[in-house]
Amino acid sequence: MQRSIKIAGYLDLTALQTLTLAHEFKMRRGLIATPTLAFETWGALNSSKDNAVLLFTGLSPSAHVASSINDPSAGWWEDMVGPAKPINTDIYFVVCVNSLGSCFGSTGPASINPDTGAIYRLTFPVLTIEDIADSASHVLNYLGIDTLNCVIGASMGGMTALAFAQQHPDRTRRLVSISSAARSQPFSIALRSLQREMIHTDPAWQGGNYDLKGNGPVNGMRLARKLGMISYRSAAEWAERFGRERATDFIHADDPFGIDFEVESYLESHANRFIGRFDANCYLYLSRAMDLYDAADKGGSLEASFKKLQLEAALIVGVETDFLFPIEQQEDLAVALDAHIDQVHFKRLSCIQGHDSFLVDMDRFRPALADFF
Amino acid sequence: MQRSIKIAGYLDLTALQTLTLAHEFKMRRGLIATPTLAFETWGALNSSKDNAVLLFTGLSPSAHVASSINDPSAGWWEDMVGPAKPINTDIYFVVCVNSLGSCFGSTGPASINPDTGAIYRLTFPVLTIEDIADSASHVLNYLGIDTLNCVIGASMGGMTALAFAQQHPDRTRRLVSISSAARSQPFSIALRSLQREMIHTDPAWQGGNYDLKGNGPVNGMRLARKLGMISYRSAAEWAERFGRERATDFIHADDPFGIDFEVESYLESHANRFIGRFDANCYLYLSRAMDLYDAADKGGSLEASFKKLQLEAALIVGVETDFLFPIEQQEDLAVALDAHIDQVHFKRLSCIQGHDSFLVDMDRFRPALADFF
Repeated sequence: MQRSIKIAGYLDLTALQTLTLAHEFKMRRGLIATPTLAFETWGALNSSKDNAVLLFTGLSPSAHVASSINDPSAGWWEDMVGPAKPINTDIYFVVCVNSLGSCFGSTGPASINPDTGAIYRLTFPVLTIEDIADSASHVLNYLGIDTLNCVIGASMGGMTALAFAQQHPDRTRRLVSISSAARSQPFSIALRSLQREMIHTDPAWQGGNYDLKGNGPVNGMRLARKLGMISYRSAAEWAERFGRERATDFIHADDPFGIDFEVESYLESHANRFIGRFDANCYLYLSRAMDLYDAADKGGSLEASFKKLQLEAALIVGVETDFLFPIEQQEDLAVALDAHIDQVHFKRLSCIQGHDSFLVDMDRFRPALADFF
Repeated sequence: MQRSIKIAGYLDLTALQTLTLAHEFKMRRGLIATPTLAFETWGALNSSKDNAVLLFTGLSPSAHVASSINDPSAGWWEDMVGPAKPINTDIYFVVCVNSLGSCFGSTGPASINPDTGAIYRLTFPVLTIEDIADSASHVLNYLGIDTLNCVIGASMGGMTALAFAQQHPDRTRRLVSISSAARSQPFSIALRSLQREMIHTDPAWQGGNYDLKGNGPVNGMRLARKLGMISYRSAAEWAERFGRERATDFIHADDPFGIDFEVESYLESHANRFIGRFDANCYLYLSRAMDLYDAADKGGSLEASFKKLQLEAALIVGVETDFLFPIEQQEDLAVALDAHIDQVHFKRLSCIQGHDSFLVDMDRFRPALADFF
């Protein structure tokens, strides 16, 4: 299918490229006109065009995975992607697309609907993981990549990588899924549903019509981010790290329910860094997309749903202290893939940092990925 | 020490009795004038007065543990306390005191300060677990009980039971602590801190000055209760119970972030039952008291702090799927007690319902307690 391109180019002092489709994009539950997809790349596509790695992100990161000449600022997976790093950009051409529905360059609820000139907000169609996966295939078309060496993602990105392999079985030879799952379990749905409720019951959300240049539902976002941080780490890590240490900052003597313990101060710092950086409506859409995802939607069982996969190899990585995406879910995924794929590697890592380990426990994650790549 | 009693009597159609102290009560971090303590009893005190069991509750229950002639409505531990039940009221005289700081008859932030005629609200002193434990000793004085056969509690009640045994080492021969801990770990502090933030950032909280006859911070309480429910159960239970079932009630087609999954509907029902039943300020005080509790506050180590205990026996029960009070904490407690107490029994139960198992997995909890009693 011919895909025409309207915009594609480097912006100043950023490695971010954007591709705006010249046609409407069909989502699972609606249509949007000419969406823009923002992406970054590292390394070079080889002449046989078989060294490309497509990386999908978790809910909140941008496409800035790692530094490059065009953008020397550290990326969110700086230790993993680059020259001589586990995903070695001397060998691989790495592409990361900012998720459709997000707010770092790709079209989402905070973008202007070209048909109306107004910001989408809640008129943006229900977003699914499959939409995010499918939108990235247009970036591959634009870059001239037919078949990936590998599609990879952690957390929500792992769901998206799997959805990509299911939707486009001939477009990737390998899959890496990290601390992710083939579907959301009710416990993680409950946590995310509560995070969304914190945001949409904040009066400042205004039914989604908050001023995008203003602060928006700061309190709801703060609460949601704190619950996020609680679900991303582990009790064992915090017991070791904070114990019952008292905080030395954020103390307000006149506030009987203010910050007292170090762990509360830690959450406050993280929440403060998040506020104003992520659009609330985008957060709601992406969060819901994770709940809705079920790789077995069409096939009944996971195994049956994986029948059409054409993968040569898959690496599934899980962390023992992850309670948001418990390791049993990665094991289930590996077992179901194993029914159809020659080489399925399942790595169980004993990191202490819970779901976020892939971002912080580089001593365990670097070799796990280097072995595969 | 002489304790005088101002009021003590049965109310109509309730088994609740109240004792109002005629003197001020010294709390760890303040003083209150003539507090009232509400309690219920089951069974009869024997002539040697050595068959009394004092039961402390978790954060939210009242003193209505079980039905009786005076109040035939089912109590929150109906299966555990009563004639021929594991805590057999044909043998034991069971006393449950509504926690100081709560709102089911005992004095707390929602009560009127007799010195000023105004509701305490945030002028109530910082509440500690030790205050709750100590206040109950006045009920024992009133009932003519010098030494308990046993002090028992689950969750926050287990902390209070331990604090009681530490403060009054000569007043109990045995201790039962269920799904509790000798101190709060940072993970549970983080969860409770976030619950409190949900409430005190709800504009309807009004700095604690909401109308006590009105609705108060309903949204904050709803969010806090939902997070409570998430932390009280387990992912394994919900996976089994709800899977990815869709909800059939609470559906609002016009609300893109409304309830969709059965687990969301379950949380909504639980929150609706909680709203209006528990005072928000009382919740904040009790929640914080749990964070502040550390049985080793004075002794340095747990073991050193338990030196003065005079217990003959202790039963420590934990549940493998409890992530709010993880079983390692009960094991630590049992080990520290074992250094000073002859008979320490540690029971590790494989219930699936997490922290709340003691309320619902009666098949495992009944025999565990019956063996001890």
